[in-house]
Amino acid sequence: MHPHFETYLQTHTTLLPDSIRRVSSMAIPHTLRRNEYILSTGEICRHKVFVISGMLRMFGTSADGSEHILQFAPENGWTLDVESYDKQIPSLVNISAIEPSVILCWTKADFTSLLSDIPQFRSFADQIIARNNYYSRQRMLTMLSATPEEKYESFVQNFPGYLSRLPLRMIAAYLGISLKTLTRIRHMQLQRS
Amino acid sequence: MHPHFETYLQTHTTLLPDSIRRVSSMAIPHTLRRNEYILSTGEICRHKVFVISGMLRMFGTSADGSEHILQFAPENGWTLDVESYDKQIPSLVNISAIEPSVILCWTKADFTSLLSDIPQFRSFADQIIARNNYYSRQRMLTMLSATPEEKYESFVQNFPGYLSRLPLRMIAAYLGISLKTLTRIRHMQLQRS
Repeated sequence: MHPHFETYLQTHTTLLPDSIRRVSSMAIPHTLRRNEYILSTGEICRHKVFVISGMLRMFGTSADGSEHILQFAPENGWTLDVESYDKQIPSLVNISAIEPSVILCWTKADFTSLLSDIPQFRSFADQIIARNNYYSRQRMLTMLSATPEEKYESFVQNFPGYLSRLPLRMIAAYLGISLKTLTRIRHMQLQRS
Repeated sequence: MHPHFETYLQTHTTLLPDSIRRVSSMAIPHTLRRNEYILSTGEICRHKVFVISGMLRMFGTSADGSEHILQFAPENGWTLDVESYDKQIPSLVNISAIEPSVILCWTKADFTSLLSDIPQFRSFADQIIARNNYYSRQRMLTMLSATPEEKYESFVQNFPGYLSRLPLRMIAAYLGISLKTLTRIRHMQLQRS
């Protein structure tokens, strides 16, 4: 039904073919235009989302309109506002497409039944949550301790494929540095190389 | 055996008395002096830790010796380097006592068996992990978007009881602002009030 997603599950889990078909059969596909939102501040996050192709970002917005990016979700990534989804409360963030994207969505009821019926799927989901936690902790430590240059260097090392796909202002909004500082850093690197 | 901890479990979980006794019986108590370490960078985190009294902090250290604080763990808090514990790899952080403290420790083998044998304990542990995730995301968004004044204000609102227990330099190291900036913010607040 969703061959790309089924291949992803075959590659990353030990799920049996029947379970893979069941998880896949409950997914609702959506095609997103560039800049199309799937969640806006104040709405309740009602779906788990897997990205088949393209890239999404999760971000908050300040009163002055500036963006603060919590996550980039490229192909084979998952995204949701976990607190809004778990508690069914209004979200503090937005999720929208940076590129034209294709995503799969599961309702909370469907995803919850999959997690409880298929123990290997549950442990796979737990692994993804754990990996996100490890990364968040590292990112927090980097944000607390690193210079802007080191923050950018760490981003390049963690996400080498993102540089050519993202406008500089989004990288700056993810790193918590100004566009001006990021431009200066990249200019100095170009001069050195 | 550990009456404070057993009361904590009675209050926060639906565990049966037998299960509470079992979890409690596997805990190893330790008394920590101020500044005593229970984990240092490069060591493997081998225990889950519950704080009976006192306060611990988890922090990284830069080459210049400056501290970057990921977490404060006061009484009734849990602490560990989750990535080091899960993967049994060397830790990037330290955990030490800010005040004279009493803690309970569980080995990974014991804690894992408790989680798999007692489903309600597992779901309680999952709840704590989820709550930490929600808070980490909010903290990340604050770090990306807030002014130093707003960061301090958010800290005061989240942890009103910590102010009198923590040296200013630790609050600054948690907020990712300089001690000078924090001192200026507090000075301005005192003038206003």
